Amino acid sequence: MDQKSGAHERNPEFAEFVARLKRIKLLGSAQGIIEYDMEVSMPPGGAEARGEVAAELAGLEHEMTTSAEFRRKAERMMSLAHRGQLDPFEATVVRRACKEIEREAKLPKELVEELAAVTSEAHHVWAAAKGISDFTSFLPHLKRIIALKRQEAAAVGFRASPYDALLDGYEPGMTCASVEAMFTPLTAFLKDFIRRLASGTPPDESRAKIRAPLVIQQRVCRKVAEAMGFDFSRGRLDASAHPFTNRLHPGDTRITTRYDENDLLSAVYSTVHETGHALYEAGMPQEQFGTCAGESASFGIHESQSRLWENMIGRSAGFCFFLIYDILRHEGLPIGHPYDFRPHDMFCAVNVCRPSLIRTEADEVTYNLHLALRFELERALIEGTIEAKDLPRLWNAKMEEYLGVTVPDDGHGVLQDVHWSAGYFGYFPTYTLGNLYAAQLFEAARRDLPLVGEKSFSGDFADLRDWLRAKVWRHGAMLDPADLITQATGEPPSAEPFKRYLETKFKLVYRL
Amino acid sequence: MDQKSGAHERNPEFAEFVARLKRIKLLGSAQGIIEYDMEVSMPPGGAEARGEVAAELAGLEHEMTTSAEFRRKAERMMSLAHRGQLDPFEATVVRRACKEIEREAKLPKELVEELAAVTSEAHHVWAAAKGISDFTSFLPHLKRIIALKRQEAAAVGFRASPYDALLDGYEPGMTCASVEAMFTPLTAFLKDFIRRLASGTPPDESRAKIRAPLVIQQRVCRKVAEAMGFDFSRGRLDASAHPFTNRLHPGDTRITTRYDENDLLSAVYSTVHETGHALYEAGMPQEQFGTCAGESASFGIHESQSRLWENMIGRSAGFCFFLIYDILRHEGLPIGHPYDFRPHDMFCAVNVCRPSLIRTEADEVTYNLHLALRFELERALIEGTIEAKDLPRLWNAKMEEYLGVTVPDDGHGVLQDVHWSAGYFGYFPTYTLGNLYAAQLFEAARRDLPLVGEKSFSGDFADLRDWLRAKVWRHGAMLDPADLITQATGEPPSAEPFKRYLETKFKLVYRL
Repeated sequence: MDQKSGAHERNPEFAEFVARLKRIKLLGSAQGIIEYDMEVSMPPGGAEARGEVAAELAGLEHEMTTSAEFRRKAERMMSLAHRGQLDPFEATVVRRACKEIEREAKLPKELVEELAAVTSEAHHVWAAAKGISDFTSFLPHLKRIIALKRQEAAAVGFRASPYDALLDGYEPGMTCASVEAMFTPLTAFLKDFIRRLASGTPPDESRAKIRAPLVIQQRVCRKVAEAMGFDFSRGRLDASAHPFTNRLHPGDTRITTRYDENDLLSAVYSTVHETGHALYEAGMPQEQFGTCAGESASFGIHESQSRLWENMIGRSAGFCFFLIYDILRHEGLPIGHPYDFRPHDMFCAVNVCRPSLIRTEADEVTYNLHLALRFELERALIEGTIEAKDLPRLWNAKMEEYLGVTVPDDGHGVLQDVHWSAGYFGYFPTYTLGNLYAAQLFEAARRDLPLVGEKSFSGDFADLRDWLRAKVWRHGAMLDPADLITQATGEPPSAEPFKRYLETKFKLVYRL
Repeated sequence: MDQKSGAHERNPEFAEFVARLKRIKLLGSAQGIIEYDMEVSMPPGGAEARGEVAAELAGLEHEMTTSAEFRRKAERMMSLAHRGQLDPFEATVVRRACKEIEREAKLPKELVEELAAVTSEAHHVWAAAKGISDFTSFLPHLKRIIALKRQEAAAVGFRASPYDALLDGYEPGMTCASVEAMFTPLTAFLKDFIRRLASGTPPDESRAKIRAPLVIQQRVCRKVAEAMGFDFSRGRLDASAHPFTNRLHPGDTRITTRYDENDLLSAVYSTVHETGHALYEAGMPQEQFGTCAGESASFGIHESQSRLWENMIGRSAGFCFFLIYDILRHEGLPIGHPYDFRPHDMFCAVNVCRPSLIRTEADEVTYNLHLALRFELERALIEGTIEAKDLPRLWNAKMEEYLGVTVPDDGHGVLQDVHWSAGYFGYFPTYTLGNLYAAQLFEAARRDLPLVGEKSFSGDFADLRDWLRAKVWRHGAMLDPADLITQATGEPPSAEPFKRYLETKFKLVYRL
């Protein structure tokens, strides 16, 4: 799909439709700015009123999206598309926008409001329950959320599984069946691969622990983001409890990281991850802001961009060399390793595989087993084949089976993630899809750019950026993720490149 | 007017009306957050799209305020008030809200949009013109703005002068005549007072120049704001090019200052000024957010709060003592004055009177002459008795007459302020009104609290805060500014207390 179709005269009705889409998107920008301030700047006293501001804007956006007048306009545009009165670019923009409008319009107002109210309350209950490992206090809220998400799936409509309706909101075109086809063999491979690594030589992890004062960490992270291509005249790097990326609007992409004075690389890898997201956001056609041509293809594709930079680039020998010699050395780091801190040691130390309890702290190998477990459980919850009350037991059994890890309490088990309390059913698989897409894209990029690994040693990522821009960024959401991956790599989405990638790297690190 | 009238059951129609007012106010909060981010955080690349976000929200707020349905509701509320079916509190809230709704509704949409477009462009032209002192390039834009503001005045309606219609938007109930009645004798007094001071002994200004690194200045300003009573769990202090205060919404009041490493007191006095604004914002009845009971009485009353803290408190001997002994000493400041830096020296040094070119840098005495000049000129522009093209000549002549200062170029003369380029005609007099109200309030406060000066020496401002809360803050905008001042001090607004205040302080400083 070629974005340059803006060259000829646009259908005036299309232009008017896009202008309205952009107005809705501007309201989304306002919400993004408000949320960003909430995470980065807001004093605690502002929380309650801020929630009201956010709700008011969300309500206005919903009204604007689902007003009878706008839906009539959307229907009219669809009929123009059907009658061939729009060019292919216009037709795609219309089709995608109408899909979202319809999805939103299908949800009864009462359901939307109840979900907002229930998840808002559940969030607080979940946070408290997690702190004291008390699943039973969270259970009634979780049951209500599951019931509402099942209603949502029914309202949206689906063919095979109600879970498909939810998944499609995050990963257009993906279904339980297509996810399962990749995840089941991947899970088997990973379980076996972990056992194989256990027979190797584990790296010395102390080579990844670097202490550094906050101001130095801030400078290092800024330099890393700059080297990756983040433009600080069109963005910022700040600190927040949970790192995130948010393009507020064209020309202003924000990323955050978190700092721990005992662990410089934690801030660095958060920064690399978020910068990966940010390059994608800033790399989309900015003039298409408001239409699918100017937004991300899916949650999975977004995650592929962050994970490609974080893992394929960031955890490579070349990047460790660049980080040590071009950045850390100028800051007098790593302190305490004046002579013997070698890039290869760091490379090995940032590529440790160790089964553990918490998803967000998991390494590249075990991470996807955490997700497989969640996908299986949440799918069964939505399909109604298991009950919420049985979750802790099922969770703990799967942790034992997949990772050989014994869960000591629900705070470190089934209660660890925020997603279910927020109603994000269907989100988890996109993390693994991101990893798979990343490996597949990177394998293709290396085919086209044989020197990409070598160039990492000097922090030269220009070729890789150009490749990603051409293959991924510039397409926005004009293609479904599976089609985007197929077009970019010549193959449909598959777990094979990821398996090859893991084998190559971890066999080297574990000297197998 | 007693705010506690919330105790009994509210008229349900009134409650519904207030809920709608609050929704409009929440949109205002969203705009405040967006603006704050723009001033404090936004990278330059975001400017263009940010303008679109802000315009979209402003448009939505205007729509919400002037929709036919809401105006019918407002009319219905007014008729309830007329028929005595609302209690006095409710009736005041309704009357004030309807006044604003009507004002907004009276402005033709084309006028609002043209004003927004013209001032947006004029702002850039003005900034460039100021830089190169080129009044002629700004003149056509200024003429257009004046014409539009005259249209605005005609649409809003007025009795004596079209300027009254504009002034009323900033200072409800004030007119040219009432402002003139105070300003004319004040101007005469100030011109004479400056001459008298010139015969005294000027203080050694070097005693107010303290160099300090940024981090120390940040700490000092934070401590000053805390001592004044600013609650950092419900607010923040940041840096921006032009210091400002913005209560984003209940529980989140932001202030900014600006730092110059060569001049600590510049940042300190900016902080004191903005904290004065912030205490007022945070001191209003927060639960009344959205109605006049929870907002500021006027621009002049707002300025009175900042100026009272900045000048009557901040430039007092007691505050200088407190600043040096309780704050600066702990930071090892003032560097370079280890033994002989005495509070009395600082007190004198921060109370210098010297006629100068730039309003924002003017001292307490000369400041109001800068405003008198602007009031006279902008009033004549709006009334059509002078022409915009003659402004530089008239400006320079008045500067000579009032302050004995020769204007070297228009950049340091008629082009120095942003206000006219933004269409803020009627704003300038509120600065002087703020100074007059401040002196009158402070004189009354000292009558009620004879120890307020003594308590400043230990940074104990609790009594003063309680007094201001009782007399000013808790009333929100339930009273017109003149009534608020009369109720608080026992006298209608007058320049006499300000004259007495200047005489007392400056005669001491200048040893007259």
